[in-house]
Amino acid sequence: MLPGSHRAAGLVDDAALVRAMVAVEVAWARVLGSSVSLGSWVPTLDPSEVEAAGNPVLPLVSALRSKVSETVHTGLTSQDVLDTAFMLLARDVLARVSADLERVAAALARLAGEHRDSVMAGRTLTQFAVPITFGLKAARWLAGVLDSLDELEAVSRNLPVQCGGAAGTLSRAASVVDPVAAASSFAGYLGLVWPGMPWHTYRAPVTRLGDELVRVCSVLGVLAADVLTLGRPEIGEVGEGAVAGRGGSSTMPHKRNPVLSVLVNSAALQAPQLGAQLHLCAARAVDERPDGAWHAEWPALRSLLELAVVAASQAAELVEGLEVHEDVMARRAEAAAGELLAEAGGGEDVTAYLGAAGSFVDEVLKRWEVRRGD
Amino acid sequence: MLPGSHRAAGLVDDAALVRAMVAVEVAWARVLGSSVSLGSWVPTLDPSEVEAAGNPVLPLVSALRSKVSETVHTGLTSQDVLDTAFMLLARDVLARVSADLERVAAALARLAGEHRDSVMAGRTLTQFAVPITFGLKAARWLAGVLDSLDELEAVSRNLPVQCGGAAGTLSRAASVVDPVAAASSFAGYLGLVWPGMPWHTYRAPVTRLGDELVRVCSVLGVLAADVLTLGRPEIGEVGEGAVAGRGGSSTMPHKRNPVLSVLVNSAALQAPQLGAQLHLCAARAVDERPDGAWHAEWPALRSLLELAVVAASQAAELVEGLEVHEDVMARRAEAAAGELLAEAGGGEDVTAYLGAAGSFVDEVLKRWEVRRGD
Amino acid sequence: MLPGSHRAAGLVDDAALVRAMVAVEVAWARVLGSSVSLGSWVPTLDPSEVEAAGNPVLPLVSALRSKVSETVHTGLTSQDVLDTAFMLLARDVLARVSADLERVAAALARLAGEHRDSVMAGRTLTQFAVPITFGLKAARWLAGVLDSLDELEAVSRNLPVQCGGAAGTLSRAASVVDPVAAASSFAGYLGLVWPGMPWHTYRAPVTRLGDELVRVCSVLGVLAADVLTLGRPEIGEVGEGAVAGRGGSSTMPHKRNPVLSVLVNSAALQAPQLGAQLHLCAARAVDERPDGAWHAEWPALRSLLELAVVAASQAAELVEGLEVHEDVMARRAEAAAGELLAEAGGGEDVTAYLGAAGSFVDEVLKRWEVRRGD
Amino acid sequence: MLPGSHRAAGLVDDAALVRAMVAVEVAWARVLGSSVSLGSWVPTLDPSEVEAAGNPVLPLVSALRSKVSETVHTGLTSQDVLDTAFMLLARDVLARVSADLERVAAALARLAGEHRDSVMAGRTLTQFAVPITFGLKAARWLAGVLDSLDELEAVSRNLPVQCGGAAGTLSRAASVVDPVAAASSFAGYLGLVWPGMPWHTYRAPVTRLGDELVRVCSVLGVLAADVLTLGRPEIGEVGEGAVAGRGGSSTMPHKRNPVLSVLVNSAALQAPQLGAQLHLCAARAVDERPDGAWHAEWPALRSLLELAVVAASQAAELVEGLEVHEDVMARRAEAAAGELLAEAGGGEDVTAYLGAAGSFVDEVLKRWEVRRGD
Repeated sequence: MLPGSHRAAGLVDDAALVRAMVAVEVAWARVLGSSVSLGSWVPTLDPSEVEAAGNPVLPLVSALRSKVSETVHTGLTSQDVLDTAFMLLARDVLARVSADLERVAAALARLAGEHRDSVMAGRTLTQFAVPITFGLKAARWLAGVLDSLDELEAVSRNLPVQCGGAAGTLSRAASVVDPVAAASSFAGYLGLVWPGMPWHTYRAPVTRLGDELVRVCSVLGVLAADVLTLGRPEIGEVGEGAVAGRGGSSTMPHKRNPVLSVLVNSAALQAPQLGAQLHLCAARAVDERPDGAWHAEWPALRSLLELAVVAASQAAELVEGLEVHEDVMARRAEAAAGELLAEAGGGEDVTAYLGAAGSFVDEVLKRWEVRRGD
Repeated sequence: MLPGSHRAAGLVDDAALVRAMVAVEVAWARVLGSSVSLGSWVPTLDPSEVEAAGNPVLPLVSALRSKVSETVHTGLTSQDVLDTAFMLLARDVLARVSADLERVAAALARLAGEHRDSVMAGRTLTQFAVPITFGLKAARWLAGVLDSLDELEAVSRNLPVQCGGAAGTLSRAASVVDPVAAASSFAGYLGLVWPGMPWHTYRAPVTRLGDELVRVCSVLGVLAADVLTLGRPEIGEVGEGAVAGRGGSSTMPHKRNPVLSVLVNSAALQAPQLGAQLHLCAARAVDERPDGAWHAEWPALRSLLELAVVAASQAAELVEGLEVHEDVMARRAEAAAGELLAEAGGGEDVTAYLGAAGSFVDEVLKRWEVRRGD
Repeated sequence: MLPGSHRAAGLVDDAALVRAMVAVEVAWARVLGSSVSLGSWVPTLDPSEVEAAGNPVLPLVSALRSKVSETVHTGLTSQDVLDTAFMLLARDVLARVSADLERVAAALARLAGEHRDSVMAGRTLTQFAVPITFGLKAARWLAGVLDSLDELEAVSRNLPVQCGGAAGTLSRAASVVDPVAAASSFAGYLGLVWPGMPWHTYRAPVTRLGDELVRVCSVLGVLAADVLTLGRPEIGEVGEGAVAGRGGSSTMPHKRNPVLSVLVNSAALQAPQLGAQLHLCAARAVDERPDGAWHAEWPALRSLLELAVVAASQAAELVEGLEVHEDVMARRAEAAAGELLAEAGGGEDVTAYLGAAGSFVDEVLKRWEVRRGD
Repeated sequence: MLPGSHRAAGLVDDAALVRAMVAVEVAWARVLGSSVSLGSWVPTLDPSEVEAAGNPVLPLVSALRSKVSETVHTGLTSQDVLDTAFMLLARDVLARVSADLERVAAALARLAGEHRDSVMAGRTLTQFAVPITFGLKAARWLAGVLDSLDELEAVSRNLPVQCGGAAGTLSRAASVVDPVAAASSFAGYLGLVWPGMPWHTYRAPVTRLGDELVRVCSVLGVLAADVLTLGRPEIGEVGEGAVAGRGGSSTMPHKRNPVLSVLVNSAALQAPQLGAQLHLCAARAVDERPDGAWHAEWPALRSLLELAVVAASQAAELVEGLEVHEDVMARRAEAAAGELLAEAGGGEDVTAYLGAAGSFVDEVLKRWEVRRGD
């Protein structure tokens, strides 16, 4: 019932997590020399057993062992399976988010180009400052999105397997395989990275992922918040594209609520707390497996993964459909020329007081074109 | 797959929320003079429509209107329905949490009484301080639980209906009924309170609820964290009761992990962020309905409601089954007498240096007995 | 250099904290039968000694013991002194905040009365909804302020002394005085409450205080955020009162930035995290004194106390000076009548579609008058 | 009075901030062709003027203009000066933190090497798991510190100047200089980076800095928390080095509290909230300068900068002085062999069941040696 959550359907829900855990076990079985073929088998886990074990891995392994006769799981611990499964979910999420950010970037690049010289009032602390252009605004958003794309790619390339056994020594695994080589193969089979050491008590792989997703939500949230302000009826400089059936009210038939902007803005207000939760868990990753902080990571990570997918997808639609009323912008800028040009000692031509705006736009567009391979 | 979430089954999930929204609409229909009988009807809402509307109310109202011919919803706005529905969920959650806290309290009262004079080492900043009793420790936990019970009761008694119409004036309702009397009846039908004014942009009803739930999680979390420390194998002064099949490891057959304590501790690490999210939303409740902050409230509130239910239920089992090794406590306290009595200038009888411990225990137990009506 | 921090000068800084600690020691000395007279003596503490002790109490006690010959501190522990000193700071802060909230309330009551029938556009999700009045908006803010005043008063009446000795048993104190009677006298001398038991590991006295201060910041923050929106040049329905020298820009001479609103809004964005920090510390209040969580409480509590003082003081000036342009409101509402009355099936008289707005205003004003004793 | 804050003296306090702002203005004056020589001049700013301006820049510029006759500040806005000044503070902080992390790393490398084969009990969920070595534990901490060193270096190399003028167009600057070349020179004079575009509404430079500092606190906090657990009197496997006068109690003369560990642990509990505050401000960086979110960034950033400096310095002392009782570790591991080797099907030689522990240690030490240039 959370508006938009269907956009992340199948990516981070229970079934996806169990599926990812199965994939992890299958890859490890391969490391052990077993050839396990499970097709699309996804066991149903008993929630009481999940709680009794403290996590879903032990019930999964029981189900797996009654399904196949090959050796499975030997040498791994629950944390290996669950941490690695989350990294598989993260990979899919990052791919999806990046694809939607590419759409956002393409649409912003178009807007930045088209409105490179569309003058509008700059606003600081809610009041008129000096003139800017809508192209500059779009370019500023775009540059943030391009940064995020680069950073998500870096995070994605470095998503690690967790592989440490009961306490980070791979002792049990060492009794059947070369443990370091095994960890490396394990990573290879899954398309993840073996970071040279287990990270059971060092949660930077999780917080780095989280931080970038929070940054994605912020970049999109600022955009959405600006759209909301500029789309107020008294301002009317932009508007969410009209889509039949969207933005209605349960009581006021005329209303066209800027639903996508509201929801993206809402995501941006939620992401920082979720990221903080991951950092707090990292700060409490004690002993060789912490007594609560690991468990506290899961819901926040899932929520943040879902939030980012939904927000990026909504933002893509929002930006692709954005209506820009450059005429309203221009009229307002002209009407407010007295204030907008006060810094310059007055004058009337707001289009002549734009400083480096155009060159900033050009630079960001160049970056975008390089990225696209033009 | 979150361990323990089945303990909150049916209380805060999508079906529960829709059911609560239906109950709200039925109550309002009654205010309007309609007699709507829906049995256990719970419509399935299309997630795309939920997103298009920005919330699940508009699709619900559509479903409702195609189901019944009576006048429904007239005069309400989405926020009235959703806020009030959340208050209905909160009421059920508070009842459940309180019932489990009563179990926690009863078990702690028993422990406090039985161990009123069971001496143990007091520990500050991880080091031995002066002797205390386990009864005092239990009484300190109990006093917090009793405070929480009082506070939850106060919150529960004051859960309000939201009733304001499109912008907090009840203008549409006023065209068909006496709006203030209607709001009051609405509250009466639902067993909630009419606070005299809509609170669409004043979220204290939500943050007060949240704050108390966070406090519940803290009280239980401190208890769980202490159990975890005192249950370390090197300390061994308490232990989670053995339950067949609980606390196993996916790799180490001998292990008996203190699963309930770990999970309750984990809840305590999560609750503060969720409470902060609610406060942040309250701080951004702008205009006559905010552009994202209201939407950002829902997931945090649901997560916090669920977390509190699960933690209280787990804590009840934990405390009811707690094993207390007063012999280990006593032996350690005696062995450490030199340190524990250093403040007193030495001596050897740790049981003679307990200050007001006994009288503190007695006072808390008296409070408990008054509550029970003894 | 934080704008406005001078408004809290002397209330929560290092000197204030040391002064409060001295007051606590003097009161306890009185409990011990010593009559210590220190005038306005405030020792300078060596920061290295503060760190070596982990808190400022041990250096303070050393300074005190070299200053006076009477028995001091015997039976207390550092936490007793520091926790109680913070409660003394809190008392002064609450008095100051309440006094400023009274000013806010008085000014809002005036506005609510004067503008009981000043029609304006209601705005939901940034778009026009139905008409409201500015009086209703002011009344909604006022009701929140009145709630806060009641709640601050309740918190203020219940600020507790901490009195537990080394590990919460008052064992050392018990060797020289009746410990429970002593705790009670201690509270009496300081004008605080003895809650019947030490709260060294139960931090609800801190989180309750924190939660109310966060709520104060939210109530004021919503007001400030609405002023910021309604004061945008394109909207112009309210404005911060002009004060010579305030709101200037380092570059644009014409600008009159809504500085007070910006700063109050900024406080509201900060308070939730600070409150969350206090809750997190409460959740980790383990053993008989925690190994870090107590120390992590101090900076957040001081920041939150200061923030609330500054925000309340700024808000009082803001509301007292607020300019309300009811003519602009009315013109806009009339111009937008088509949208504002769509719910009602059209019409042109926005002043005739205000539902219960007036009666809500009247009810809040009645509450205010009862409070003032009219 | 916050224990340890003297370790950051002069780095982030008001004087440091004003000094940094002066440096920024001097560099910009140079861009403008002015040669301003101010020696160590640091003006005292009137707090009322700071508040009236909403930030300390306008009063600073006034003071500067009455001090020098050259053209200063022309073309900059307050945000340019303050953001850039914070980056200068950050640079000094990062240098200091990195230097202390180098000390931590060196001490951990020594410990990892010395204790490469010191067997001890591995502990998961507070219970005995399989054997590990203390060397492995130290190596796991070390690897995190080495990551942080790399990441801080990357952040440090990319600290940007903010240079955008009133609304991010450099319009006023453009009337006197080539704006883009000027921004680039400005960065060059200050030893910062010009990122090609102003970042007034894109706060990733702040959040990236914040995230790394939070990660530093987490890495050190986990170490401190483990020291606290292993240093409990019942465990006694490590201990903070004894330092005369440190760790005393105001009441118990015998106590030697692990003060440094407590304080570092405390920092780790605080950092996540501070980081979240920065992200929240980033999410609200609206318009061409936000109406509160920018102001809300400053206190959190200063607190986080200070916290990281203090924690890194304390951690260096902690690790350099750490006492490791490998005999206690070995005795306990042997005594618990039954449990520690259960996974392996029993046996008695805990030193023979260490899996890849040694090779993990070797790999981290190799990384350290490469870094040192060995």
